[in-house]
Amino acid sequence: MHLIGMLDSPYVRRCAISGTALGLTFQHSSISVFRHMDRFGAINPLYKAPSLIAADGTVLMDSALILRHFEDVAGRSLYPADPAARLKDLRLEGLGIVACDKAVGVEYERKRPEAQRHAPWMERIREQLATALRLFEAQADFAASRPTPGLIAGLMAWGFSQFVIPEYVKASSFPKLAEGAAHWEATPLFRQWPIDRE
Amino acid sequence: MHLIGMLDSPYVRRCAISGTALGLTFQHSSISVFRHMDRFGAINPLYKAPSLIAADGTVLMDSALILRHFEDVAGRSLYPADPAARLKDLRLEGLGIVACDKAVGVEYERKRPEAQRHAPWMERIREQLATALRLFEAQADFAASRPTPGLIAGLMAWGFSQFVIPEYVKASSFPKLAEGAAHWEATPLFRQWPIDRE
Repeated sequence: MHLIGMLDSPYVRRCAISGTALGLTFQHSSISVFRHMDRFGAINPLYKAPSLIAADGTVLMDSALILRHFEDVAGRSLYPADPAARLKDLRLEGLGIVACDKAVGVEYERKRPEAQRHAPWMERIREQLATALRLFEAQADFAASRPTPGLIAGLMAWGFSQFVIPEYVKASSFPKLAEGAAHWEATPLFRQWPIDRE
Repeated sequence: MHLIGMLDSPYVRRCAISGTALGLTFQHSSISVFRHMDRFGAINPLYKAPSLIAADGTVLMDSALILRHFEDVAGRSLYPADPAARLKDLRLEGLGIVACDKAVGVEYERKRPEAQRHAPWMERIREQLATALRLFEAQADFAASRPTPGLIAGLMAWGFSQFVIPEYVKASSFPKLAEGAAHWEATPLFRQWPIDRE
Protein backbone atom coordinates (compact mmCIF):
# COMPACT_ATOMS: atom_id res chain seq x y z
CA MET A 1 0.00 0.00 0.00
CA HIS A 2 1.12 3.54 -0.69
CA LEU A 3 -0.17 6.62 1.16
CA ILE A 4 0.04 9.88 -0.77
CA GLY A 5 -0.07 13.33 0.80
CA MET A 6 1.71 15.83 3.02
CA LEU A 7 1.69 15.28 6.77
CA ASP A 8 0.69 18.90 7.36
CA SER A 9 -2.77 17.67 6.31
CA PRO A 10 -4.48 16.40 9.47
CA TYR A 11 -6.30 13.82 7.33
CA VAL A 12 -3.11 12.42 5.82
CA ARG A 13 -1.46 12.32 9.20
CA ARG A 14 -4.34 10.51 10.90
CA CYS A 15 -4.18 7.83 8.22
CA ALA A 16 -0.42 7.43 8.68
CA ILE A 17 -0.65 7.24 12.47
CA SER A 18 -3.69 4.95 12.45
CA GLY A 19 -2.19 2.60 9.88
CA THR A 20 0.98 2.28 11.91
CA ALA A 21 -1.02 1.81 15.12
CA LEU A 22 -2.82 -1.06 13.37
CA GLY A 23 0.54 -2.68 12.64
CA LEU A 24 0.36 -2.13 8.88
CA THR A 25 3.31 -1.39 6.65
CA PHE A 26 2.94 0.99 3.72
CA GLN A 27 4.97 3.43 1.67
CA HIS A 28 4.40 7.14 2.04
CA SER A 29 5.06 9.95 -0.43
CA SER A 30 4.85 13.62 0.58
CA ILE A 31 3.26 15.05 -2.55
CA SER A 32 1.38 18.34 -2.38
CA VAL A 33 -2.03 18.86 -4.00
CA PHE A 34 -1.00 22.46 -4.71
CA ARG A 35 2.75 22.52 -5.32
CA HIS A 36 3.08 19.14 -7.11
CA MET A 37 -0.10 19.08 -9.15
CA ASP A 38 1.47 17.15 -12.04
CA ARG A 39 2.73 14.34 -9.81
CA PHE A 40 -0.42 14.24 -7.71
CA GLY A 41 -2.70 14.37 -10.73
CA ALA A 42 -0.96 11.35 -12.25
CA ILE A 43 -1.96 9.33 -9.17
CA ASN A 44 -5.36 10.88 -8.55
CA PRO A 45 -6.88 13.42 -10.95
CA LEU A 46 -9.08 14.64 -8.10
CA TYR A 47 -6.06 16.07 -6.22
CA LYS A 48 -7.45 14.70 -2.97
CA ALA A 49 -5.11 14.14 -0.03
CA PRO A 50 -4.83 11.62 1.40
CA SER A 51 -5.03 9.16 -1.46
CA LEU A 52 -4.19 5.53 -0.82
CA ILE A 53 -3.01 3.19 -3.52
CA ALA A 54 -4.27 -0.16 -2.27
CA ALA A 55 -2.34 -3.40 -2.79
CA ASP A 56 -4.31 -4.19 -5.96
CA GLY A 57 -3.77 -0.68 -7.39
CA THR A 58 -7.18 0.73 -6.48
CA VAL A 59 -6.89 4.39 -5.50
CA LEU A 60 -8.94 5.21 -2.41
CA MET A 61 -9.66 8.64 -1.06
CA ASP A 62 -11.26 10.28 1.96
CA SER A 63 -9.48 9.55 5.22
CA ALA A 64 -12.51 7.87 6.82
CA LEU A 65 -12.67 5.37 3.96
CA ILE A 66 -8.93 4.77 3.94
CA LEU A 67 -9.21 3.98 7.65
CA ARG A 68 -11.96 1.47 6.88
CA HIS A 69 -9.70 -0.24 4.38
CA PHE A 70 -6.81 -0.23 6.86
CA GLU A 71 -9.10 -2.00 9.34
CA ASP A 72 -10.06 -4.55 6.67
CA VAL A 73 -6.40 -5.27 5.87
CA ALA A 74 -5.37 -5.42 9.53
CA GLY A 75 -8.37 -7.51 10.49
CA ARG A 76 -8.90 -5.35 13.54
CA SER A 77 -9.92 -1.86 14.62
CA LEU A 78 -8.65 0.92 16.86
CA TYR A 79 -12.12 1.53 18.29
CA PRO A 80 -12.93 0.24 21.77
CA ALA A 81 -14.76 -3.09 21.65
CA ASP A 82 -17.33 -2.17 24.29
CA PRO A 83 -20.38 -0.65 22.52
CA ALA A 84 -20.79 2.29 24.92
CA ALA A 85 -17.08 3.12 24.78
CA ARG A 86 -17.16 2.81 21.01
CA LEU A 87 -20.09 5.21 20.75
CA LYS A 88 -18.25 7.65 23.00
CA ASP A 89 -15.21 7.42 20.75
CA LEU A 90 -17.30 8.05 17.63
CA ARG A 91 -18.59 11.18 19.38
CA LEU A 92 -15.02 12.24 20.08
CA GLU A 93 -13.97 11.49 16.52
CA GLY A 94 -16.80 13.67 15.20
CA LEU A 95 -15.56 16.55 17.33
CA GLY A 96 -12.04 15.98 16.07
CA ILE A 97 -13.06 15.82 12.43
CA VAL A 98 -15.18 18.95 12.67
CA ALA A 99 -12.20 20.68 14.26
CA CYS A 100 -10.00 19.49 11.37
CA ASP A 101 -12.53 20.66 8.79
CA LYS A 102 -12.90 24.09 10.34
CA ALA A 103 -9.16 24.55 10.94
CA VAL A 104 -8.47 23.74 7.29
CA GLY A 105 -11.31 26.08 6.36
CA VAL A 106 -9.64 28.89 8.31
CA GLU A 107 -6.36 28.24 6.50
CA TYR A 108 -8.05 28.21 3.07
CA GLU A 109 -9.91 31.43 3.86
CA ARG A 110 -6.69 33.06 5.01
CA LYS A 111 -4.88 32.03 1.82
CA ARG A 112 -7.34 33.94 -0.36
CA PRO A 113 -6.47 37.37 -1.69
CA GLU A 114 -7.52 39.75 1.05
CA ALA A 115 -10.33 41.30 -1.00
CA GLN A 116 -11.90 37.86 -1.52
CA ARG A 117 -12.09 36.93 2.14
CA HIS A 118 -15.55 36.95 3.66
CA ALA A 119 -15.47 38.10 7.28
CA PRO A 120 -18.79 36.56 8.43
CA TRP A 121 -17.71 33.18 7.08
CA MET A 122 -14.34 33.38 8.80
CA GLU A 123 -16.08 34.32 12.04
CA ARG A 124 -18.48 31.37 11.76
CA ILE A 125 -15.79 28.74 11.14
CA ARG A 126 -13.43 30.19 13.77
CA GLU A 127 -16.21 29.93 16.33
CA GLN A 128 -16.97 26.34 15.25
CA LEU A 129 -13.29 25.45 15.50
CA ALA A 130 -12.98 26.88 19.01
CA THR A 131 -16.16 25.11 20.14
CA ALA A 132 -15.07 21.78 18.67
CA LEU A 133 -11.67 22.01 20.39
CA ARG A 134 -13.28 23.04 23.68
CA LEU A 135 -15.66 20.05 23.61
CA PHE A 136 -12.88 17.69 22.54
CA GLU A 137 -10.66 18.93 25.36
CA ALA A 138 -13.46 18.35 27.87
CA GLN A 139 -14.38 14.86 26.65
CA ALA A 140 -11.09 13.23 25.59
CA ASP A 141 -9.19 10.87 27.87
CA PHE A 142 -5.62 11.97 27.26
CA ALA A 143 -4.36 9.34 29.72
CA ALA A 144 -5.77 6.51 27.59
CA SER A 145 -3.46 3.53 27.29
CA ARG A 146 -3.70 3.46 23.50
CA PRO A 147 -4.78 5.88 20.78
CA THR A 148 -8.37 5.53 19.56
CA PRO A 149 -9.72 7.05 16.34
CA GLY A 150 -11.43 9.76 18.38
CA LEU A 151 -8.31 10.70 20.28
CA ILE A 152 -6.22 10.70 17.11
CA ALA A 153 -8.69 12.89 15.18
CA GLY A 154 -8.74 15.61 17.82
CA LEU A 155 -4.98 15.54 18.25
CA MET A 156 -4.59 15.96 14.49
CA ALA A 157 -6.81 19.06 14.57
CA TRP A 158 -4.80 20.46 17.44
CA GLY A 159 -1.46 19.76 15.78
CA PHE A 160 -2.59 21.39 12.54
CA SER A 161 -3.94 24.40 14.40
CA GLN A 162 -0.70 24.91 16.30
CA PHE A 163 1.52 24.34 13.27
CA VAL A 164 -0.39 26.17 10.53
CA ILE A 165 -2.79 28.67 12.13
CA PRO A 166 -1.44 29.26 15.68
CA GLU A 167 -2.54 32.89 15.67
CA TYR A 168 -6.15 31.69 15.42
CA VAL A 169 -5.98 29.08 18.22
CA LYS A 170 -4.16 30.20 21.32
CA ALA A 171 -2.57 27.26 23.14
CA SER A 172 -3.06 29.04 26.47
CA SER A 173 -6.84 28.84 25.99
CA PHE A 174 -6.72 25.03 25.89
CA PRO A 175 -4.26 24.03 28.64
CA LYS A 176 -5.52 20.47 29.11
CA LEU A 177 -5.51 19.82 25.37
CA ALA A 178 -2.06 21.36 24.95
CA GLU A 179 -0.70 19.15 27.71
CA GLY A 180 -2.39 16.04 26.41
CA ALA A 181 -1.12 16.72 22.90
CA ALA A 182 2.43 17.23 24.19
CA HIS A 183 2.21 13.79 25.82
CA TRP A 184 1.01 12.04 22.67
CA GLU A 185 3.28 13.93 20.30
CA ALA A 186 6.23 12.62 22.35
CA THR A 187 5.29 8.97 21.80
CA PRO A 188 7.20 6.92 19.20
CA LEU A 189 4.00 6.45 17.18
CA PHE A 190 3.39 10.16 16.71
CA ARG A 191 7.09 10.98 16.33
CA GLN A 192 7.24 8.54 13.45
CA TRP A 193 4.87 10.84 11.54
CA PRO A 194 5.87 14.42 12.33
CA ILE A 195 3.70 17.18 10.94
CA ASP A 196 6.75 19.13 9.81
CA ARG A 197 8.61 16.32 8.08
CA GLU A 198 8.84 18.32 4.90
CA MET B 1 -32.37 7.64 17.47
CA HIS B 2 -33.06 11.05 16.00
CA LEU B 3 -31.45 12.36 12.80
CA ILE B 4 -31.17 16.14 12.55
CA GLY B 5 -30.69 18.07 9.32
CA MET B 6 -32.22 19.09 6.01
CA LEU B 7 -32.42 16.55 3.22
CA ASP B 8 -30.98 19.04 0.74
CA SER B 9 -27.67 18.19 2.43
CA PRO B 10 -26.26 15.16 0.61
CA TYR B 11 -24.68 14.02 3.89
CA VAL B 12 -27.97 14.13 5.81
CA ARG B 13 -29.75 12.35 3.00
CA ARG B 14 -27.20 9.56 2.72
CA CYS B 15 -27.59 8.89 6.43
CA ALA B 16 -31.37 8.78 6.14
CA ILE B 17 -31.33 6.46 3.12
CA SER B 18 -28.59 4.22 4.54
CA GLY B 19 -30.28 3.93 7.93
CA THR B 20 -33.55 2.93 6.29
CA ALA B 21 -31.74 0.48 3.98
CA LEU B 22 -30.26 -1.11 7.12
CA GLY B 23 -33.75 -1.59 8.50
CA LEU B 24 -33.37 0.94 11.30
CA THR B 25 -36.11 3.18 12.60
CA PHE B 26 -35.34 6.71 13.71
CA GLN B 27 -36.96 10.11 13.95
CA HIS B 28 -35.95 12.86 11.58
CA SER B 29 -36.15 16.64 12.03
CA SER B 30 -35.52 19.05 9.15
CA ILE B 31 -33.63 21.78 11.00
CA SER B 32 -31.36 24.15 9.07
CA VAL B 33 -27.86 25.04 10.25
CA PHE B 34 -28.41 28.52 8.77
CA ARG B 35 -32.09 29.38 9.09
CA HIS B 36 -32.77 27.67 12.44
CA MET B 37 -29.55 28.37 14.30
CA ASP B 38 -31.24 28.60 17.70
CA ARG B 39 -32.93 25.22 17.39
CA PHE B 40 -29.89 23.55 15.85
CA GLY B 41 -27.49 25.06 18.37
CA ALA B 42 -29.54 23.67 21.25
CA ILE B 43 -28.93 20.18 19.88
CA ASN B 44 -25.38 20.66 18.64
CA PRO B 45 -23.46 23.90 19.24
CA LEU B 46 -21.22 23.01 16.29
CA TYR B 47 -24.12 23.51 13.82
CA LYS B 48 -23.05 20.39 11.96
CA ALA B 49 -25.55 18.56 9.76
CA PRO B 50 -26.19 15.73 9.98
CA SER B 51 -26.20 15.31 13.72
CA LEU B 52 -27.52 12.09 15.20
CA ILE B 53 -28.89 11.84 18.71
CA ALA B 54 -28.11 8.23 19.59
CA ALA B 55 -30.40 6.11 21.78
CA ASP B 56 -28.43 7.02 24.93
CA GLY B 57 -28.47 10.75 24.11
CA THR B 58 -24.93 10.96 22.71
CA VAL B 59 -24.82 13.45 19.82
CA LEU B 60 -22.79 12.13 16.88
CA MET B 61 -21.69 14.07 13.87
CA ASP B 62 -20.01 13.51 10.51
CA SER B 63 -22.01 11.31 8.16
CA ALA B 64 -19.27 8.65 7.90
CA LEU B 65 -19.32 8.20 11.68
CA ILE B 66 -23.10 8.19 11.88
CA LEU B 67 -23.07 5.43 9.27
CA ARG B 68 -20.61 3.46 11.40
CA HIS B 69 -22.99 3.75 14.36
CA PHE B 70 -25.94 2.73 12.19
CA GLU B 71 -23.98 -0.40 11.23
CA ASP B 72 -23.26 -1.10 14.90
CA VAL B 73 -26.93 -0.77 15.82
CA ALA B 74 -28.12 -2.82 12.85
CA GLY B 75 -25.44 -5.46 13.34
CA ARG B 76 -24.77 -5.46 9.61
CA SER B 77 -23.36 -3.35 6.82
CA LEU B 78 -24.36 -2.17 3.36
CA TYR B 79 -20.90 -2.92 1.96
CA PRO B 80 -20.39 -6.02 -0.15
CA ALA B 81 -19.00 -8.92 1.90
CA ASP B 82 -16.44 -9.96 -0.71
CA PRO B 83 -13.15 -8.10 0.01
CA ALA B 84 -12.47 -7.10 -3.60
CA ALA B 85 -16.02 -5.88 -4.10
CA ARG B 86 -15.85 -4.02 -0.80
CA LEU B 87 -12.63 -2.27 -1.82
CA LYS B 88 -14.24 -1.30 -5.11
CA ASP B 89 -17.20 0.14 -3.26
CA LEU B 90 -14.91 2.14 -0.94
CA ARG B 91 -13.31 3.55 -4.09
CA LEU B 92 -16.75 4.49 -5.42
CA GLU B 93 -17.75 6.00 -2.09
CA GLY B 94 -14.62 8.16 -2.11
CA LEU B 95 -15.57 9.48 -5.54
CA GLY B 96 -19.09 10.16 -4.32
CA ILE B 97 -17.95 11.95 -1.17
CA VAL B 98 -15.46 14.11 -3.05
CA ALA B 99 -18.27 15.01 -5.45
CA CYS B 100 -20.48 15.93 -2.48
CA ASP B 101 -17.72 18.02 -0.90
CA LYS B 102 -17.00 19.90 -4.10
CA ALA B 103 -20.66 20.41 -5.00
CA VAL B 104 -21.31 21.89 -1.55
CA GLY B 105 -18.17 23.98 -2.00
CA VAL B 106 -19.55 25.39 -5.25
CA GLU B 107 -22.80 26.29 -3.51
CA TYR B 108 -20.99 27.97 -0.60
CA GLU B 109 -18.78 29.93 -2.99
CA ARG B 110 -21.81 31.01 -4.97
CA LYS B 111 -23.62 32.19 -1.85
CA ARG B 112 -20.86 34.67 -1.01
CA PRO B 113 -21.23 38.33 -1.88
CA GLU B 114 -19.98 38.62 -5.45
CA ALA B 115 -16.92 40.68 -4.50
CA GLN B 116 -15.77 37.97 -2.07
CA ARG B 117 -15.88 35.13 -4.59
CA HIS B 118 -12.49 33.84 -5.70
CA ALA B 119 -12.56 32.76 -9.33
CA PRO B 120 -9.51 30.44 -9.30
CA TRP B 121 -10.94 28.56 -6.31
CA MET B 122 -14.34 28.17 -7.99
CA GLU B 123 -12.61 26.92 -11.13
CA ARG B 124 -10.60 24.35 -9.15
CA ILE B 125 -13.57 22.90 -7.26
CA ARG B 126 -15.84 22.90 -10.33
CA GLU B 127 -13.21 20.91 -12.20
CA GLN B 128 -12.86 18.49 -9.27
CA LEU B 129 -16.64 18.08 -9.11
CA ALA B 130 -16.89 17.31 -12.83
CA THR B 131 -14.01 14.83 -12.65
CA ALA B 132 -15.46 13.06 -9.61
CA LEU B 133 -18.86 12.72 -11.28
CA ARG B 134 -17.27 11.52 -14.51
CA LEU B 135 -15.28 8.80 -12.69
CA PHE B 136 -18.29 7.82 -10.59
CA GLU B 137 -20.42 7.53 -13.70
CA ALA B 138 -17.81 5.29 -15.33
CA GLN B 139 -17.32 3.01 -12.33
CA ALA B 140 -20.73 2.69 -10.68
CA ASP B 141 -23.00 -0.28 -11.29
CA PHE B 142 -26.40 1.40 -11.56
CA ALA B 143 -28.05 -1.96 -12.17
CA ALA B 144 -26.94 -3.27 -8.76
CA SER B 145 -29.58 -5.24 -6.92
CA ARG B 146 -29.19 -3.20 -3.75
CA PRO B 147 -27.73 0.17 -2.82
CA THR B 148 -24.17 0.11 -1.46
CA PRO B 149 -22.52 3.00 0.40
CA GLY B 150 -20.56 3.86 -2.75
CA LEU B 151 -23.60 3.95 -4.98
CA ILE B 152 -25.55 5.99 -2.43
CA ALA B 153 -22.76 8.55 -1.98
CA GLY B 154 -22.47 9.30 -5.69
CA LEU B 155 -26.22 9.46 -6.15
CA MET B 156 -26.41 11.97 -3.29
CA ALA B 157 -23.82 14.17 -5.01
CA TRP B 158 -25.76 13.97 -8.25
CA GLY B 159 -29.09 14.74 -6.60
CA PHE B 160 -27.65 17.75 -4.80
CA SER B 161 -25.99 19.00 -7.98
CA GLN B 162 -29.21 18.76 -9.95
CA PHE B 163 -31.37 20.28 -7.22
CA VAL B 164 -29.14 23.08 -5.92
CA ILE B 165 -26.51 23.93 -8.55
CA PRO B 166 -27.91 22.57 -11.86
CA GLU B 167 -26.34 25.41 -13.86
CA TYR B 168 -22.90 24.11 -12.84
CA VAL B 169 -23.53 20.44 -13.69
CA LYS B 170 -25.32 19.83 -16.96
CA ALA B 171 -27.33 16.61 -16.84
CA SER B 172 -26.74 16.13 -20.58
CA SER B 173 -23.00 15.76 -19.92
CA PHE B 174 -23.60 12.72 -17.71
CA PRO B 175 -26.26 10.66 -19.52
CA LYS B 176 -25.50 7.32 -17.86
CA LEU B 177 -25.44 8.90 -14.41
CA ALA B 178 -28.63 10.83 -15.06
CA GLU B 179 -30.38 7.64 -16.17
CA GLY B 180 -29.02 5.62 -13.25
CA ALA B 181 -30.06 8.30 -10.79
CA ALA B 182 -33.56 8.44 -12.29
CA HIS B 183 -33.85 4.69 -11.70
CA TRP B 184 -32.76 4.87 -8.06
CA GLU B 185 -34.69 8.03 -7.26
CA ALA B 186 -37.85 6.19 -8.34
CA THR B 187 -37.35 3.39 -5.80
CA PRO B 188 -39.40 3.41 -2.57
CA LEU B 189 -36.21 3.74 -0.50
CA PHE B 190 -35.13 6.98 -2.18
CA ARG B 191 -38.67 8.33 -2.47
CA GLN B 192 -39.04 7.97 1.28
CA TRP B 193 -36.30 10.61 1.66
CA PRO B 194 -36.88 13.23 -1.07
CA ILE B 195 -34.34 16.00 -1.36
CA ASP B 196 -37.07 18.62 -1.64
CA ARG B 197 -39.22 17.52 1.29
CA GLU B 198 -39.02 20.94 2.84
